[in-house]
Amino acid sequence: MNAPNLFPFATQLAQSRTPFPASRKVYEHGQTPGVQVPMREIALTNGERVTVYDTSGPYSDPGATIDVRQGLPEVRTAWIAARGDTEAYAGRERQALDDGVKADKHEAGRMEALRQQAAALQRTPRRARAGHNVTQMHYARRGIVTPEMEYVAIRENGRREWMADYLADAAREERLRGNPLGASTPQHITPEFVRDEVARGRAIIPANINHTELEPMAIGRNFRVKVNANIGNSAVTSSIEEEVDKLVWAIRWGADNVMDLSTGRHIHTTRDWIVRNAPVPIGTVPIYQALEKVGGVAEDLSWAVFRDTLIEQAEQGVDYFTIHAGLRLPFVHLTANRRTGIVSRGGSIMAKWCITHHRESFLYTHFEEICEIMKAYDVSFSLGDGLRPGSAADANDEAQFAELRTLGELTQLAWKHDVQTMIEGPGHVPMHLIQANMEEQLKHCHEAPFYTLGPLTIDIAPGYDHIASAIGAAMIGWMGTAMLCYVTPKEHLGLPDRDDVKQGLIAYKIAAHAADVAKGHPGARARDDAMSKARFEFRWHDQFNLGLDPDTARDFHDETLPKDSSKEAHFCSMCGPKFCSMKITQDVRDYAEKGMATKSAEFKAAGGAFYVPVASLVQN
Amino acid sequence: MNAPNLFPFATQLAQSRTPFPASRKVYEHGQTPGVQVPMREIALTNGERVTVYDTSGPYSDPGATIDVRQGLPEVRTAWIAARGDTEAYAGRERQALDDGVKADKHEAGRMEALRQQAAALQRTPRRARAGHNVTQMHYARRGIVTPEMEYVAIRENGRREWMADYLADAAREERLRGNPLGASTPQHITPEFVRDEVARGRAIIPANINHTELEPMAIGRNFRVKVNANIGNSAVTSSIEEEVDKLVWAIRWGADNVMDLSTGRHIHTTRDWIVRNAPVPIGTVPIYQALEKVGGVAEDLSWAVFRDTLIEQAEQGVDYFTIHAGLRLPFVHLTANRRTGIVSRGGSIMAKWCITHHRESFLYTHFEEICEIMKAYDVSFSLGDGLRPGSAADANDEAQFAELRTLGELTQLAWKHDVQTMIEGPGHVPMHLIQANMEEQLKHCHEAPFYTLGPLTIDIAPGYDHIASAIGAAMIGWMGTAMLCYVTPKEHLGLPDRDDVKQGLIAYKIAAHAADVAKGHPGARARDDAMSKARFEFRWHDQFNLGLDPDTARDFHDETLPKDSSKEAHFCSMCGPKFCSMKITQDVRDYAEKGMATKSAEFKAAGGAFYVPVASLVQN
Repeated sequence: MNAPNLFPFATQLAQSRTPFPASRKVYEHGQTPGVQVPMREIALTNGERVTVYDTSGPYSDPGATIDVRQGLPEVRTAWIAARGDTEAYAGRERQALDDGVKADKHEAGRMEALRQQAAALQRTPRRARAGHNVTQMHYARRGIVTPEMEYVAIRENGRREWMADYLADAAREERLRGNPLGASTPQHITPEFVRDEVARGRAIIPANINHTELEPMAIGRNFRVKVNANIGNSAVTSSIEEEVDKLVWAIRWGADNVMDLSTGRHIHTTRDWIVRNAPVPIGTVPIYQALEKVGGVAEDLSWAVFRDTLIEQAEQGVDYFTIHAGLRLPFVHLTANRRTGIVSRGGSIMAKWCITHHRESFLYTHFEEICEIMKAYDVSFSLGDGLRPGSAADANDEAQFAELRTLGELTQLAWKHDVQTMIEGPGHVPMHLIQANMEEQLKHCHEAPFYTLGPLTIDIAPGYDHIASAIGAAMIGWMGTAMLCYVTPKEHLGLPDRDDVKQGLIAYKIAAHAADVAKGHPGARARDDAMSKARFEFRWHDQFNLGLDPDTARDFHDETLPKDSSKEAHFCSMCGPKFCSMKITQDVRDYAEKGMATKSAEFKAAGGAFYVPVASLVQN
Repeated sequence: MNAPNLFPFATQLAQSRTPFPASRKVYEHGQTPGVQVPMREIALTNGERVTVYDTSGPYSDPGATIDVRQGLPEVRTAWIAARGDTEAYAGRERQALDDGVKADKHEAGRMEALRQQAAALQRTPRRARAGHNVTQMHYARRGIVTPEMEYVAIRENGRREWMADYLADAAREERLRGNPLGASTPQHITPEFVRDEVARGRAIIPANINHTELEPMAIGRNFRVKVNANIGNSAVTSSIEEEVDKLVWAIRWGADNVMDLSTGRHIHTTRDWIVRNAPVPIGTVPIYQALEKVGGVAEDLSWAVFRDTLIEQAEQGVDYFTIHAGLRLPFVHLTANRRTGIVSRGGSIMAKWCITHHRESFLYTHFEEICEIMKAYDVSFSLGDGLRPGSAADANDEAQFAELRTLGELTQLAWKHDVQTMIEGPGHVPMHLIQANMEEQLKHCHEAPFYTLGPLTIDIAPGYDHIASAIGAAMIGWMGTAMLCYVTPKEHLGLPDRDDVKQGLIAYKIAAHAADVAKGHPGARARDDAMSKARFEFRWHDQFNLGLDPDTARDFHDETLPKDSSKEAHFCSMCGPKFCSMKITQDVRDYAEKGMATKSAEFKAAGGAFYVPVASLVQN
C-alpha cells in the first residue's frame, strides 16, 4: 500500500516545539535527586497563574537543546543504576528482518543509511540481573517508594494555585466535589499512595528500564484519566525528524502515552527513533512485527518468533506490549454470528493462527514465559481485547465477555510475577451497555487499569467518530477507566493526518477532563474555574490561553472581531455590545449596589420573603 | 456591530437542495387526506433499502418546485379549516418599529423594498374563534386524534425495513433493547399514543395554526430525541434567498426545529421569510424583539409592548416562544456569588427589569394572559431558563433550581389552559450533576418535555464546545430530555458560519442518535446495523451513504485511496490489504467451513468443552 506522506517535512519540529501562548515550563522538584516534574504554567492577564499537567516533555521548553539524532536527556538512568538490580548486556543481535527487509534485498543498503542517521541512538540494553524482578509493582509490593512513584505523585498533584479559591465557597465545593463512582483519590496524593496503588495492581507506571528518557506517569482509576494516541510509520520513511515529529505533535496536544503501530518496513529503526525521543511511555503490538517477520502469513507465526520480537522490543525500551493472550481457540466460534466478526488486527491474526492449527493460542499457553520477559525489563502488559465488538450490535456479547474473563485470569498470573498489567476494552458500545463493561472489567480483572478505545456509542458517524466515541469515552472514564485510546475523525476511513491527530486528541482531552471533573479528581476543575472567571471578566486572551487549543479559539474570535481592542471589549460577537448577558449581569449588580438599599426594605414589607440584604447582590 | 455576511450568496439554495447520495424522498400516506409523511430512502448497493427520518422538507425533493418568494406548499390548511374553530381576521397593523426602524428614518424605504421582495408571503392571520381553544393539547384532552398526531405517529415509526432482521437474533435483540430509564415508547407508535402523550403534557406538537407549511413533529421523551438549531439574521440583510438558506442548510443537516434568534433590524420581515419557507417548527424569544421596540433599554420594557410582540409573532406563525417567566425578582440575588452570574440573554434582560423597577417580572404576573394568547394560535411555551448556569461552577445551584421549580408551577398553569409546554434546561453541567437536572425537571415539571442546551460538561474547550456539550447532550437525552439545542464550535467565541452550523448539527445528531439507541427507541439502531453490515462486507459506497455526512466520509476515504476501485476493495487504508482484520475474519470462516470438520472432533476429544460444531463457524 502506498500511503501518502502525511506529515510533510516543512511543518515539522519547529512548529511542534513552540510553547503555548502565555505559557512557560516550570518544574517541581522532589526529594530524590533528578525528580524534576514538568508542568505548564499559564500566566493570566490579571496576574494569576494556572499550572496544568504537561505531557509535552522537553520539547515545549525553549531552554532545552534537543537533537533528535541524540535522543532526549536521560531522566531515569541514575535511579535505575541506584537500584543495583540490573545489568548491561550485549543484547540480541540485530537482523535485517527486524526492519522487514530480507537480507538479500537491495533495500538493505537504504535501511543501513537510515539507521546511520541516528547511530547515536543505539543504547546498550539492560535487563534484570539473574533472580531479580525490576518492575515497579515488585518494588511497590516490597514497600519501596521509587523515584518514579515520587515523580508521579508530584505530577498528579500539580501546583494547586486554586486551593484558596476552592475553600472560599463551601456550598459550591460540596456540589462540585464529584461523584467518584468507586474511585478513591485522596485530596493529596503522596508517593506512598502511588506505591500502594501500584502494589495492589490498581495503577501501573509503564517504565521499561531501557526507556531512561521517560517522564514517569501513572495509569489508574485513582489518577487523572489519561489519553493514548496511536501513530504509525509512513510508508516512505524519509527522515528521523519526520517520524519523531508525529510523536512530538501528539504529546503537544496532550497524549499521555503513544502507541507505535507501525507495520511493514523500517519498524525497528523507527522504533529506535521514537523511544529515544519519547518523554511518554511507548506501547506496541509486538504481533504486528512478528507477522512481518513471517512474511505476513499468520499461520506461520510461532512462539519462537514472537518471543524473539518481545526481547527485541524490550531491549529498545518499549514500555508496554499489547498482547492478545485472552483470545483463546474456544472463543473463536463465538464470533460466527456477529455483525462484524473480529475487528482487532491482533485478534484476527491470532484467531487465524488458532483455527489454522486448531491449537490453543501460543500467547495463552506461553503466558508465564512472557511474564518472565516482562519482569526482566519492566514492560507492562496491555492485555488486548482481540474480540472487542466492531459494532454496537456485537457489544457485550459472549465472545467479548469470555475473553474479558480470561484477561482477568491472566491478570492474576501476571500479578503472580509482579508484572504491571492493564486491560484493553472496547470499541463500539451503545451508552446503555457501557456500565456493564466497566463493572465486568472491575469484577473480573480486580481493578487492574482499564484502557478503552472510545467506546463509540453509534456506528453511523464516519468522519466524526472522534465525537461519537468521545461521548462513550467520557462516560466510561468517569465510571473508572484509567486511559482512553483516542479515535480520530479518519477512523474507519483512512490514515489520520496531522490535523486528524490533533482533532482526535482534543476530543479525547475533553472526554478525559470531563471524566476527571465528574469523578472529582482534586483540582481537575481549577482550569474550568479560571476560564469561567475570565469569561465573566471579559479577559479574552486568558480565555484563549486557558483553552485546550488557544490557537483555534483565538482564530475563531478573530473571524468576527479581529481587532485587538475587541480582546478587552466587554462583549463578544455572539450578542453584540448592547445585548451581552454577562455585561447586563454586572450592570444589575452595580445598580443594586447603588440604588437598592431602600427598595429592599419595601420589598420585604410587601412579602418578598426570599429577598436578602443588598450586600449579597454585590459581586465579591 | 458589523458582523460579516456569513452565508455568501454564491453557496446558497442550490447546494442546500441537492439530495444526499443514493437517497430519494419517499412519502408514507396516512388515512387523513393530505397526511403524506416525508422520509429519506437510502438505496444500498446490495439492493437493500434503509429509510430514515427526514427533517429537510420539500427542499430535498427534486420534484418539488420551490419559490422562496411564494413560500412552501401549505400542508395543514385543510386540516385547520376542517376543525371549524378558527377565523381569519385583519390582524395587527404592521409598524415600522416591527423591523427595528423608526418611522421617520430614511431606512424605511429600504425596508419597504425588502418587504416587497416577498410580498406574496403575506398571509391573512387566523385565530381561535371566541370561546375556542385550538391547541393540540386541547384536542388531545378531548380525545381527538388530529391529522397532526397521525402524521407524527407515521413519522416516528418510519418504514421499518429492518423488522425481519431484528427478529432474526433474539439474544442480540435482548442486549440491544436499550435501557429506557423511565421512558415508555411502545414498539409501534399509534396516533392514539401520540394523542395520549400530548394530552398528558409529556409531548408537544409545536404547530401554530398560522404555520400551515409545517410538517408536524413531536417533542417528548417517548419519541426520537430532537435537535434544535439557532439561526439569526445577518447584520446586512441582502435577500430572502440568503436568509432562507440558513434555515434550509440547518434542516438539511438534521435540525428538527429552528429558532430564529434575530435581533436588531429587519426581524419582522426576516421572520416572515423564514416561517413561510419552514417545514419545521420555528421558535423565537419574543423579548428580543420587544427590547428592540424600546430602543434596547431593558427597563423600558412593559407588558403592553411584550403582549403586542407576542400577537405580532403569533400571527406570523411562530410555533413556540421562549418566555423567561420563571425568573422571579426574589431569585435574582441568588446569582450574586456565582462565577458567571446570569448568562441567558432573556434572563439578564428580565433581571435588569426586575431590579430596576423592584417589581416582580411582568412575564410572571401576566402569565395567564400569555396563556390566553398562546391558546388562540396554538403557540407552545418553551419556558426559558434565564438562570441557567454559565459555568460548571454554577451548575445545580439554588438560583437554577428555584427557577426550575417555578417553571413547574407555570407548567401547571399553562396546562390549565391546555397550552403545550416544554421546559428549557442548561447549559453548563459536569457529568456527575446531569442526572439531578433531569430528575428535578421530571419531578417538578411533571414530565413536560425537557429541552436542554448541551449541557457542556467542561468549560475549557472553546472552539470545541460542540464536542464538550455533545457528551452532556447524549447523556441527558438518554435520561429523558426530548430536544437538544445544538452548540456550534463558535460558542463563546463568535457567530457561527455555514460550516459551524453543520458541525454543530452533526455533533448533535450524534448525541441524539446515541440517546435514541440507548433508550431503545424502536428502530433507532437499524441504520447502525446497516452501516455495520456494509463495513463487514466492504461496501464502501453504502458506508458513506448511510453516514450522517456522506460527503465528508467519502472525501476522507478518497484522501488515502482515491481510486474508484478502492470503493469495492476488501481492505481499507487503515490496515492495508494484508492486514485487514475483517478480511481475516472472513478467511477464518471460509477456512473453517472447508477444513475444520475433522479437527473439531479431535479438539472435543482433547477437552475443548466450549467448542461447537463447525456449522456455527460459518457465516450465515
